[in-house]
Amino acid sequence: MQNFDFYNPTRIVFGEKSIARLDDLVPTDARVLVLYGGNSAERSGTLAEVRAALGARKLWEFGGIEPNPAYEILMRAVELVRTEKLDFLLAVGGGSVIDGTKFVAAAVSFAGDPWAILETFGSTVTDALPFGTVLTLPATGSEMNCASVITKQETLAKLPFMTPFVYPKFSILDPVKTYTLPPHQLANGVVDAFTHVIEQYLTYPTEGRVQDRFAEGLLQTLIEIGSKVVNEPADFDSRANLMWSATMAVNGLIAAGVPQDWSTHMLGHELTALYGIDHARTLAIILPAMLHLRRENKRAKLLQYAERVWQITEGDEDERIDQAIEKTRAFFESLGLKTHLSDYNISADEIDRLIQQLQAHGMTQLGEHQDVTLEVSRKVLEASL
Amino acid sequence: MQNFDFYNPTRIVFGEKSIARLDDLVPTDARVLVLYGGNSAERSGTLAEVRAALGARKLWEFGGIEPNPAYEILMRAVELVRTEKLDFLLAVGGGSVIDGTKFVAAAVSFAGDPWAILETFGSTVTDALPFGTVLTLPATGSEMNCASVITKQETLAKLPFMTPFVYPKFSILDPVKTYTLPPHQLANGVVDAFTHVIEQYLTYPTEGRVQDRFAEGLLQTLIEIGSKVVNEPADFDSRANLMWSATMAVNGLIAAGVPQDWSTHMLGHELTALYGIDHARTLAIILPAMLHLRRENKRAKLLQYAERVWQITEGDEDERIDQAIEKTRAFFESLGLKTHLSDYNISADEIDRLIQQLQAHGMTQLGEHQDVTLEVSRKVLEASL
Repeated sequence: MQNFDFYNPTRIVFGEKSIARLDDLVPTDARVLVLYGGNSAERSGTLAEVRAALGARKLWEFGGIEPNPAYEILMRAVELVRTEKLDFLLAVGGGSVIDGTKFVAAAVSFAGDPWAILETFGSTVTDALPFGTVLTLPATGSEMNCASVITKQETLAKLPFMTPFVYPKFSILDPVKTYTLPPHQLANGVVDAFTHVIEQYLTYPTEGRVQDRFAEGLLQTLIEIGSKVVNEPADFDSRANLMWSATMAVNGLIAAGVPQDWSTHMLGHELTALYGIDHARTLAIILPAMLHLRRENKRAKLLQYAERVWQITEGDEDERIDQAIEKTRAFFESLGLKTHLSDYNISADEIDRLIQQLQAHGMTQLGEHQDVTLEVSRKVLEASL
Repeated sequence: MQNFDFYNPTRIVFGEKSIARLDDLVPTDARVLVLYGGNSAERSGTLAEVRAALGARKLWEFGGIEPNPAYEILMRAVELVRTEKLDFLLAVGGGSVIDGTKFVAAAVSFAGDPWAILETFGSTVTDALPFGTVLTLPATGSEMNCASVITKQETLAKLPFMTPFVYPKFSILDPVKTYTLPPHQLANGVVDAFTHVIEQYLTYPTEGRVQDRFAEGLLQTLIEIGSKVVNEPADFDSRANLMWSATMAVNGLIAAGVPQDWSTHMLGHELTALYGIDHARTLAIILPAMLHLRRENKRAKLLQYAERVWQITEGDEDERIDQAIEKTRAFFESLGLKTHLSDYNISADEIDRLIQQLQAHGMTQLGEHQDVTLEVSRKVLEASL
């Protein structure tokens, strides 16, 4: 096992009707900015529930934080917070709204242009406003970690930042709030959480037995519930298990003491930035090709994955690895996520442009061995066609 | 899944040579009381390492916190803290030293006789001194939770308390620090952690799929490493996995959203209080009989345990349950822990006295259904002979 620090002070309040708990969780004298995305938060009644739970607190609202939250839009929220001297943020939505809220929290007191937060991957942040979240779309795990991904529309740069200052004070997870989600967003959530686990699990063995078992348990759970999540609109238990799996997938726990990859995510980010493909759908395209091409360095863990997650015990090593990758691809496809660039009409001609973007964003040595060079990324993209 | 709150702000610093990190973790102007147990902390060099890492900070020391930490002894530490106006505690040891430190932290500013903290199971605590821990004996999980068990020597009462005020600020887990432990303490650690998991897992199904998989992963890990932990003195990986398993076993994570039992612990506490049997050894005596007698209410989970943890798939339901219980017993025995009261020369004549103690301590409705009455406890004790 590798040395590690683990620290995660976010309080999780999980269960039906838990939005009412906001009254205990938000300071009574807070000047609160509620941040949200499109009008589904209003239409579903969640915003009304939030306003009711906050009672007599002074409230401001900032809507319109879309998927791949935009620096340009978020800076308007930063201005509002500064002008009105607001002191508590509440994100109501999915990963994009929460990621955006983290940026606002860190940017408010940041000296200079806050885009520098992204350019330094968060290392220049020294403070942030306190905030909580009400999660409505389980997928990214942002509700219980200190990471965020922001897009600059001007340059189509989609970059991550991390800083312990942006752990949510609390996150409210009510599985019932997912009942109104469209099936494709739920399918995205399953694949996003699944790939988060894979990025921390499918590297090389370091005798992290607990971490491996936890990762495998999350993968098994997502496989078990995936179809029900997408096809049964009001099934509490499958939604609850998705919510908790997605949170546990990327809150630091399964990463503690083991190597991490994240190259699939970095390639996926460029696909989203250039072509607007949903985040999870980019992962479904890249991951099978990534595993296929990097099988030598990942051999031991791929075999473990095949056996423990997919119960594959027949065939020689490469056959078992092939089967495991094909089962992964078939799982994604069964949920309605396509797994080839051609499914999105992206042809080989585009690969040069994608490689240029990776280079521009410093993504030249990815993966657990930093050996995913631009040349390897090119091969992965070619294999994803 | 049941509704739950999960909150655990303890920072874990894990790995070889991590004691040096004390210099970052303890405030530089702190007036520190270092609490420890017997002289093994001195002999092994751990105390010297701690002193060196704390550098120029003002230090006081309080040794002699024995297993089953005694209220009477801990009150002397409370007096020392009050007299010298100390403001930071550092526990160096295993669960007993950490539990004792939690009591001192909560007692210092407690109005009235601090034994009331135990009598109210912690609900009357409103504040506590900050403290950290340097773990030398993996077993109880106290390094990452807000629970503590204290014994009053005068009355032989061994009682637990819990309060969020006593989460450690940090815990340092260096697996190398376990190399000097005697095998019987390591065996105790494996069985203690194992039983902690069982108390939160072997109840009844609530569709807590992640929690079940995590619990099973911890049990599998402990089974895999148990023999190596006990028999190979300087094997880093098995010690690291024991340390992390024991911490994860009882930090609130696998308990979130599922029922809990803890009746084996409550019966075990009385055995320790009356006869001085090591805590883990009391669990090894009680657990097999407890599972055997309560198989009807635990049937579904016992079958899941048999299949997923022990790969038992042959035989009818009761045969599979019997096999799982016998494998559990055999695992404990293989580590050198006896599983019958008679192994400690405790005969049927003692059962009345044990039942009286349970009654005196309010332990009359234990278990996940509160149906472990004194009558059921009597049967369990009889079956443990």
